[in-house]
Amino acid sequence: MRNTESERMPYVRIAEIDVDPARLEAYRMALKEEIDAAIRLEPGVLALHAVSDKENLARIIVFESYGDEAAYKAHLETPHFRSYKAAVESMVTSLKLTETVPIVLGSKSD
Amino acid sequence: MRNTESERMPYVRIAEIDVDPARLEAYRMALKEEIDAAIRLEPGVLALHAVSDKENLARIIVFESYGDEAAYKAHLETPHFRSYKAAVESMVTSLKLTETVPIVLGSKSD
Repeated sequence: MRNTESERMPYVRIAEIDVDPARLEAYRMALKEEIDAAIRLEPGVLALHAVSDKENLARIIVFESYGDEAAYKAHLETPHFRSYKAAVESMVTSLKLTETVPIVLGSKSD
Repeated sequence: MRNTESERMPYVRIAEIDVDPARLEAYRMALKEEIDAAIRLEPGVLALHAVSDKENLARIIVFESYGDEAAYKAHLETPHFRSYKAAVESMVTSLKLTETVPIVLGSKSD
């Protein structure tokens, strides 16, 4: 568990993405492909957890955890992230990015 | 990585909690204690990731992952969760709970 003050915390961001409901399935495919590649290829990408709001499936929330801010910046320059951004540009109707300060990141697998 | 259609997805919720800024440190302590206990004691609590919005540290977002909905309901009845709720009742100024449908939960440790 990463929950001690002394332990270095990951760099965590939250993305809230509204998608054109008519394009939702295509968006989900593109997002899955991007996340699979990022987890597989980037040592600094620790977690990308993408969910839909159950009341509005076209509203996507992504909890993003990187080793540090440099790992996040490197992620933005990868071919898979650039391909994703180009593919979804016409599908996304709004994007809100929140930078965070972790408090406690508890999980069974740590 | 939990990212195949065939694999059963966890039950994921997101809590957005606004805290009285004057009580933030006490709130953080109570939240850490609650999360540590839940991860340690409850097999059905897979992850509880709590962060502050960097622009407003008194706004807390918790990404919550349970084995299933029954595990979430059991969590609400535990002594550590009940103690936490009682302790923070006067500290929390607003609480928004979002039920979600997971799309892809990618992480290095899976």
